[in-house]
Amino acid sequence: MHSSDILIIGGGPAAMVAAGTARQYYPEKSVTVLKKTEDSLVPCGIPYIFGPLLDSPEDDMIPCGDMAKKMGTELLHEEAIAIDTASKIVTGKSGEIYRYDKLIIATGSVPKVPENIANHDAEGVFFVPKDPDYIRKMHEKVKGMKTVAIVGTGFIGIEIANELRDAGKEVALIGSRLLKHSFDPEVSEYMEKLIDAKGIVHYQGRRTSAIVTDASGRAVGLRFDNGEEIACDGVILATGYRPNTELARRSGLSMRQGDTIYVDEYMRTTAPDVFAVGDCAEKRHFITKRTIPVMLASTATAEARIAVANLYAIRLVKSFSGTIAIFSTVVGDTCFGSAGITEEDAKKQRIDVATAVVKVPDKHPAKLPGSHEQAVKLIASRATGQLIGAQVVGGIDIGEMINMLGVIIENRMTVYDLLGLQVATHPLLTSAPTTYPIIVAAQNLAARTLSAKE
Amino acid sequence: MHSSDILIIGGGPAAMVAAGTARQYYPEKSVTVLKKTEDSLVPCGIPYIFGPLLDSPEDDMIPCGDMAKKMGTELLHEEAIAIDTASKIVTGKSGEIYRYDKLIIATGSVPKVPENIANHDAEGVFFVPKDPDYIRKMHEKVKGMKTVAIVGTGFIGIEIANELRDAGKEVALIGSRLLKHSFDPEVSEYMEKLIDAKGIVHYQGRRTSAIVTDASGRAVGLRFDNGEEIACDGVILATGYRPNTELARRSGLSMRQGDTIYVDEYMRTTAPDVFAVGDCAEKRHFITKRTIPVMLASTATAEARIAVANLYAIRLVKSFSGTIAIFSTVVGDTCFGSAGITEEDAKKQRIDVATAVVKVPDKHPAKLPGSHEQAVKLIASRATGQLIGAQVVGGIDIGEMINMLGVIIENRMTVYDLLGLQVATHPLLTSAPTTYPIIVAAQNLAARTLSAKE
Repeated sequence: MHSSDILIIGGGPAAMVAAGTARQYYPEKSVTVLKKTEDSLVPCGIPYIFGPLLDSPEDDMIPCGDMAKKMGTELLHEEAIAIDTASKIVTGKSGEIYRYDKLIIATGSVPKVPENIANHDAEGVFFVPKDPDYIRKMHEKVKGMKTVAIVGTGFIGIEIANELRDAGKEVALIGSRLLKHSFDPEVSEYMEKLIDAKGIVHYQGRRTSAIVTDASGRAVGLRFDNGEEIACDGVILATGYRPNTELARRSGLSMRQGDTIYVDEYMRTTAPDVFAVGDCAEKRHFITKRTIPVMLASTATAEARIAVANLYAIRLVKSFSGTIAIFSTVVGDTCFGSAGITEEDAKKQRIDVATAVVKVPDKHPAKLPGSHEQAVKLIASRATGQLIGAQVVGGIDIGEMINMLGVIIENRMTVYDLLGLQVATHPLLTSAPTTYPIIVAAQNLAARTLSAKE
Repeated sequence: MHSSDILIIGGGPAAMVAAGTARQYYPEKSVTVLKKTEDSLVPCGIPYIFGPLLDSPEDDMIPCGDMAKKMGTELLHEEAIAIDTASKIVTGKSGEIYRYDKLIIATGSVPKVPENIANHDAEGVFFVPKDPDYIRKMHEKVKGMKTVAIVGTGFIGIEIANELRDAGKEVALIGSRLLKHSFDPEVSEYMEKLIDAKGIVHYQGRRTSAIVTDASGRAVGLRFDNGEEIACDGVILATGYRPNTELARRSGLSMRQGDTIYVDEYMRTTAPDVFAVGDCAEKRHFITKRTIPVMLASTATAEARIAVANLYAIRLVKSFSGTIAIFSTVVGDTCFGSAGITEEDAKKQRIDVATAVVKVPDKHPAKLPGSHEQAVKLIASRATGQLIGAQVVGGIDIGEMINMLGVIIENRMTVYDLLGLQVATHPLLTSAPTTYPIIVAAQNLAARTLSAKE
């Protein structure tokens, strides 16, 4: 029988951050991580191993073993197959029994299998799991293809399409409006133009009904539900992920909508001394408090840090107020960021909003070399002015600008607060102080009340 | 006699933002701007007209006339020479009398004349005023020089040195530790290496006692107070600015330390219906509440927006809690940002602080092309964990990362709040979710209390 103070099941970012944080806060406790696969990928880096930016999948590997050793945690290659929350033991596939004082479940997510697509298990059809061996083999095979069809217009589908195209392949992208959960239609349309200019063919609004196979059962095309067919050498199904929670369900933990593990504000499950963090744990939206299927390594690691801080006692009261669903991505040399709720989604949820869009050059004067247009959309509660969503498009600094907007949303700042916001502006780094788009957009929203007569 | 509802004295960013905001909030009111010079420069763009990035000073001009026309404000080429706050009239140099209902003073700042440097008014010696005609002539003359000595190691001095060097000139930089008011010694030292690698000669710690002149009175060198002399073809005195407040003082407005105009939280002076914004108005520090000589276009425009919103009634209660002194700049391809108080300054002011520094690659995996090291230093109140200062060094996204840290400081967030901070991370745009440096630095600070035993 193996025994440790803190046992962590999983091997992704949340598990590794939980292990590191546990060692930092509780140096006298023993920490063990049960990890199913030998090594790990940087999950959000997977699309980039298919393009010219990385040389091979090995460039995207996380040296988990080295990290664990450095942190002073034990890392075991083991699959957990049962949790007895009453006796506080975990059974491994190897037959070993692991006794724990505190357990953190960080089993992540796995690709959703689209049962409605016939032949989805044909040869030449790939998912995008966070499994190094699968991705290594997939990478080898996709490298040899000339034409690839990608089903799914979420982040992973679009990013892989972008990379495969940059690697010189013919790429077909099948799905609905681009990134429709994170961006409003006008932003998707702008992204659509960039995708089109790259020569990626987007079959928008088509639904894939079947993988077309040859006599040997190999994928050679796609069939849409209107009967139309397209040819390809291989198919990538980027059709989303589902929480990897069979183990938790089987072990009697209370589950929530979308097969997620119920957790409270401190990431505690219903079983004593059992915590869950990351994609496998329930996510509630910061604005609506509804359960939503947002899966983000950054949210997962935040949850890991919160869980570990509160492992032996609640030390950070009211730790986590829900996910703000904060994303960024790149198409060509244009960067996109989104945080909070979209205008479309707000209206669906009957949230009364006002919006403003401001477009400015991202350097000043605009004649400086490398100046890029920067567009900011703010979505605020109409009555109170509280900022509840933001979308930004522009150059590489969009990556941190959306994080700035995330901090604004998390602090429940209003457009009135933003009027006096102090920002550093610099000719080579930002728009002008007079036109800084977050402030100008806030002012345009504040003007609705501030320009009204008494 | 000329008459307008809202009269603005000045022509810089604060004046133009005040005019535009006034038109937006009070479309029925007439707005007049009295501007001394015909056209305007982007103030922070001035260093870049000396380098290869802009073709000429004209690239840095603000089309104030067009802007005013577009906003529906009257822009008059006029110098205000007296304010009668009792009769509510301003006298212009032209002899015209301007009646106002509300007056906004935005007279900005002018270069400080270093009286302790002999011959500072010699031919070939230049200041860096925000005066288009002066800068045009200066630009012509500096273009022809081979060796330029720059006195002053603040932002303007360093940025002009950088640009003149990029334009192929021999550059000597004279002054103390680089940007010592905004960065701690270790950051200055790093910047020093970049300055040195560019071939700029920094005479650190030397004090300039005189401009050396030839028989015709032209500057041909500098003399330091240790007697040492260096030769040059011209001198730029980047020795700081002073508030341009003679008019306000003569008009009987209450003044504060450093010759600034006293203003309250709503930018109101002691005279009824008279507001002051920008470099001419008193600045109090967000953390210490002491008067400090920070001059920033972004703070000036924030003050302009606050003043105009509160012009006829206080509509934004507790509008402005002091300047957080937020700056960014670039040396070579490395970007620097600072917000709040430095560790050195905090200690001088007897603030009990704890600090943490984290360095990570700014893309993930780090093997992605264009990856740059990113360093974040956080300065927090030791007892409460409230973040009171931050310094960052890295790639171009530092410009918005320091703004994100500014929002964190303005919201009085603690390192404990930052543990659950949600950020968007993306391989091409940011560091990894597991290593995002603001969060990791916060965790290292939080660990001081969270890892302590009960």
